[in-house]
Amino acid sequence: MRGRTDLAVEMKEDIKGDEPITGVHLMTKNHGDTDVKETRIIVENEEGALKLGKPVGTYITLESEHFREQDEGIHAPMMEVLCKEIRQLIGNKKKIMVAGLGNREVTPDALGPFVIDNLYVTRHLLKEGIIRESVELSAIAPGVMAQTGMESLTVLKALVDSIKPELLIVIDALAARESDRLNKTIQIADTGITPGSGVGNHRNAINKESIGVPVIAIGVPTVIAVPTIVNDAMDVMVNALGKQATKNVLKKFNDEERYQLACEMVTPYLENMFVTPKDIDEAVKRISYTISEAINKAVLA
Amino acid sequence: MRGRTDLAVEMKEDIKGDEPITGVHLMTKNHGDTDVKETRIIVENEEGALKLGKPVGTYITLESEHFREQDEGIHAPMMEVLCKEIRQLIGNKKKIMVAGLGNREVTPDALGPFVIDNLYVTRHLLKEGIIRESVELSAIAPGVMAQTGMESLTVLKALVDSIKPELLIVIDALAARESDRLNKTIQIADTGITPGSGVGNHRNAINKESIGVPVIAIGVPTVIAVPTIVNDAMDVMVNALGKQATKNVLKKFNDEERYQLACEMVTPYLENMFVTPKDIDEAVKRISYTISEAINKAVLA
Amino acid sequence: MRGRTDLAVEMKEDIKGDEPITGVHLMTKNHGDTDVKETRIIVENEEGALKLGKPVGTYITLESEHFREQDEGIHAPMMEVLCKEIRQLIGNKKKIMVAGLGNREVTPDALGPFVIDNLYVTRHLLKEGIIRESVELSAIAPGVMAQTGMESLTVLKALVDSIKPELLIVIDALAARESDRLNKTIQIADTGITPGSGVGNHRNAINKESIGVPVIAIGVPTVIAVPTIVNDAMDVMVNALGKQATKNVLKKFNDEERYQLACEMVTPYLENMFVTPKDIDEAVKRISYTISEAINKAVLA
Amino acid sequence: MRGRTDLAVEMKEDIKGDEPITGVHLMTKNHGDTDVKETRIIVENEEGALKLGKPVGTYITLESEHFREQDEGIHAPMMEVLCKEIRQLIGNKKKIMVAGLGNREVTPDALGPFVIDNLYVTRHLLKEGIIRESVELSAIAPGVMAQTGMESLTVLKALVDSIKPELLIVIDALAARESDRLNKTIQIADTGITPGSGVGNHRNAINKESIGVPVIAIGVPTVIAVPTIVNDAMDVMVNALGKQATKNVLKKFNDEERYQLACEMVTPYLENMFVTPKDIDEAVKRISYTISEAINKAVLA
Repeated sequence: MRGRTDLAVEMKEDIKGDEPITGVHLMTKNHGDTDVKETRIIVENEEGALKLGKPVGTYITLESEHFREQDEGIHAPMMEVLCKEIRQLIGNKKKIMVAGLGNREVTPDALGPFVIDNLYVTRHLLKEGIIRESVELSAIAPGVMAQTGMESLTVLKALVDSIKPELLIVIDALAARESDRLNKTIQIADTGITPGSGVGNHRNAINKESIGVPVIAIGVPTVIAVPTIVNDAMDVMVNALGKQATKNVLKKFNDEERYQLACEMVTPYLENMFVTPKDIDEAVKRISYTISEAINKAVLA
Repeated sequence: MRGRTDLAVEMKEDIKGDEPITGVHLMTKNHGDTDVKETRIIVENEEGALKLGKPVGTYITLESEHFREQDEGIHAPMMEVLCKEIRQLIGNKKKIMVAGLGNREVTPDALGPFVIDNLYVTRHLLKEGIIRESVELSAIAPGVMAQTGMESLTVLKALVDSIKPELLIVIDALAARESDRLNKTIQIADTGITPGSGVGNHRNAINKESIGVPVIAIGVPTVIAVPTIVNDAMDVMVNALGKQATKNVLKKFNDEERYQLACEMVTPYLENMFVTPKDIDEAVKRISYTISEAINKAVLA
Repeated sequence: MRGRTDLAVEMKEDIKGDEPITGVHLMTKNHGDTDVKETRIIVENEEGALKLGKPVGTYITLESEHFREQDEGIHAPMMEVLCKEIRQLIGNKKKIMVAGLGNREVTPDALGPFVIDNLYVTRHLLKEGIIRESVELSAIAPGVMAQTGMESLTVLKALVDSIKPELLIVIDALAARESDRLNKTIQIADTGITPGSGVGNHRNAINKESIGVPVIAIGVPTVIAVPTIVNDAMDVMVNALGKQATKNVLKKFNDEERYQLACEMVTPYLENMFVTPKDIDEAVKRISYTISEAINKAVLA
Repeated sequence: MRGRTDLAVEMKEDIKGDEPITGVHLMTKNHGDTDVKETRIIVENEEGALKLGKPVGTYITLESEHFREQDEGIHAPMMEVLCKEIRQLIGNKKKIMVAGLGNREVTPDALGPFVIDNLYVTRHLLKEGIIRESVELSAIAPGVMAQTGMESLTVLKALVDSIKPELLIVIDALAARESDRLNKTIQIADTGITPGSGVGNHRNAINKESIGVPVIAIGVPTVIAVPTIVNDAMDVMVNALGKQATKNVLKKFNDEERYQLACEMVTPYLENMFVTPKDIDEAVKRISYTISEAINKAVLA
């Protein structure tokens, strides 16, 4: 591991670069004449899961150079591709709940709640007979534990047990390893999500096992964990120092040991800090809008 | 009824002014040398409930002339009195959930969510062993049906069933009949609440019967229903017109009929509009802060 | 006057209904196969200005039945028409400042600040040489007097004197007389604006005379003044009372006197309250987005 | 320099640790029986300014262990001390403007705008004769260049020229070098401020020279620049590697060269990212409240 990441595509790169792994399939394609590039990683079995460090399932990564730009017109192709993927995962399910995880008050973590703000929920309109034929959509932004005293999993489990949707879609901000992937990438996983996993907190996965219905996770990397940066800096440093002796020392560490070293270097920052771009407000606003539009279109049309 | 209101103290005035009603007790007192005036209405039995139009229980109204002023120092006595009342209602219960009802995006309705923003929740700290001796406080802002597709009652019932608090405190913005009471009054009721009741929507009471645990409701009037204003205007108008003939006509209507008339007059505005002061942003910010401080102090100290 | 309004189209209706007024031209047209209806009122001279109660200039009103609906796809035609009108008013000016008037914390008044949030400003990019060919766009949300202690006019005059744009576009929430026009209508005036004029505060017009450069005002009615509602209710009431005597009394009042009467009826609410729809959060979010898109497209493309 | 910082107290530590510098005086004291520790750095002359890297003037740093805690009661002593310092700097000036720099939408940068939200401005009340005897307080949150296309300096200069206050107080979020100082420290400088200086942007100082009236800057470190973290990590790393050869190489670099090296290591993150604590939302809310209370009390009482 070269630095903590929530992206299956980065975990794959970490292990073997472009080489194949038993039990893990990787496919890439471009979407028509758009600049949206899709990487599909399928973890076939427990052997693959163990190697990749991600549960058995499918991880779709959509990436677009233009997705970071300010012009919203450019986001249309990404929205269309995302919509198509969501539609396929929904299939013919008729009752869906969307959960926007994260803290509305911390900009890079506000992605989930902002998506909820722009959804066209229909559950109450169906119940009241105002509309008749539609997928039943409900939505919740459960807040974070420091605000509610409750795990997101606890809140969502209670609501799913009561509302009984056939599918839960969770939206969350992720941590990436490469700064180049921030705000440019959307990951869709049919395996659910572990909130906060990108920043060092592995409890309480939200998945079919814990929730009782299938869980699709849509995530966007908006932060980088602090040790990642130091880890990245190490190679540069060693080269800059230019001493063969030092290089040899670093070579004795394996990846896990090097990451451990990076963690130790940044002990005071490690647990409680994150790195994020200065224009994160614009990015989160635009991307959350793209995701809510994709869900609205996938569900209603 | 002279106009819809959520305040027991106004419903009492509507019926008999200062005269006693069988089954309804009314007591007033001043709090020490503060300007906080308390009115306590006890609905003793079903006869009283029927007459007042409010369920059997206790309704405490705290009122302070200075509560509307900008200087937060002035809010301290109100906070102290409110804290004392809450503490009494909590008794020796050790697991409490607070729910902030309403829409964070509509200023006069944001009171409940803003209270949640300033609470010191402890449930997760107790679970994790970070603190040991404390009331277990959890909190939720469930949003409104147009955002979630779910009734507040549905969300809260699911959470209470899962978290199992001994007491639910719900915070909500209310409708008053008298503009003079807006942002100056806090009502505490041990009977729970009917969300939106002040503005024409009587379903889904949140109370011990529906939730399964005792429910304390803390409400502050921040809006006036449109028909109320027209109703108020009628007397003035008739006097202004000065015609005995008109006065006589109006006298033929009883209170219920007059209110019905007022409703008809404002049909296009009735269901979907509200009246609120222009400085509602400052008022809601200050009052929500006072309430959250009172709960924090009542629960933690 | 049948109730205070900021809309030229309502002031016209108040005076003569559909009859012509000397010095005031009114033209209507539909925009292609969209449902956007345009009313253009041209106040030719001082005589017309005196009669209409609006300064000499052009007032364009765009109205769309669908503009109130939640589906943002439906807003595209309105955006396109608005963009075309703005482009025409801009002409070949190359330095433009946009000011979003109003209070971000009070939902129906947040329209102006929300428009600013979504503009693509370019002034700094041109200054820094990051882009070369573009209209120079700057933007400001000056806040309201209760927040800043300064009139919007004072803030904008200082900035225009310093930045020297060729044109100032001000965005503001307006008051309408007809509830049916709320959140469905956009008014574009080449005469500037008087902030708060719809709710009883006539100082400090922001126009070419006070600012020093041409001022285009884009406004959307989001509130109704309280007396308007009572005024509307009077007819209904009198008919409901059905007494010829009362009708005759009311007939003795002219429009101005009747409005005065309505104001007196609602004295306690008059100065400091407003009426607004319950779903005002959704409306303001959608409409501000449409306006910012129209400006972005008009300026940049 | 061991990493960019906006805090005079850290710049002093960087150069000489506790040793004296010619032209720079350093005094520390404790405030009564509170835990508020004050460090006062006086830069006497140009020689001191050159050495410290900060303009001639006085830099007061207030630090409190408890300032980071959630209980707002604990913030009272800090508020009192800050109030006293501000009062002294204000002296007998009667017209004051406060500017809250930064981006309201990016949590650690929202400190300035949040302070403005809680100020009791008086300028309009004095102008309108509603109050008579008071300091004239005006306030503005000028936004950031990406939102307005204008430098903060440009906006403030225009407003000061128009409103003519005798003193400008600017509030801004700062960058610290030590993570331990984040959200625990308040710096008050009578030399004004260079917005964004903590994160690599040195243009456009807001000070008496550029603005025309004295400028007091109140700043709180809420972020750490990315190179700082790598820089800190280097010592740890070298020690961890334990090779004398490497240590010797590093020793050849002076502080400036080492910082340059750290910058190179984090090139992709450098210009556009920052590091901040996860609970930054709570910290910024509490601290901005403390500052606005201190200003309100200093100005009004």
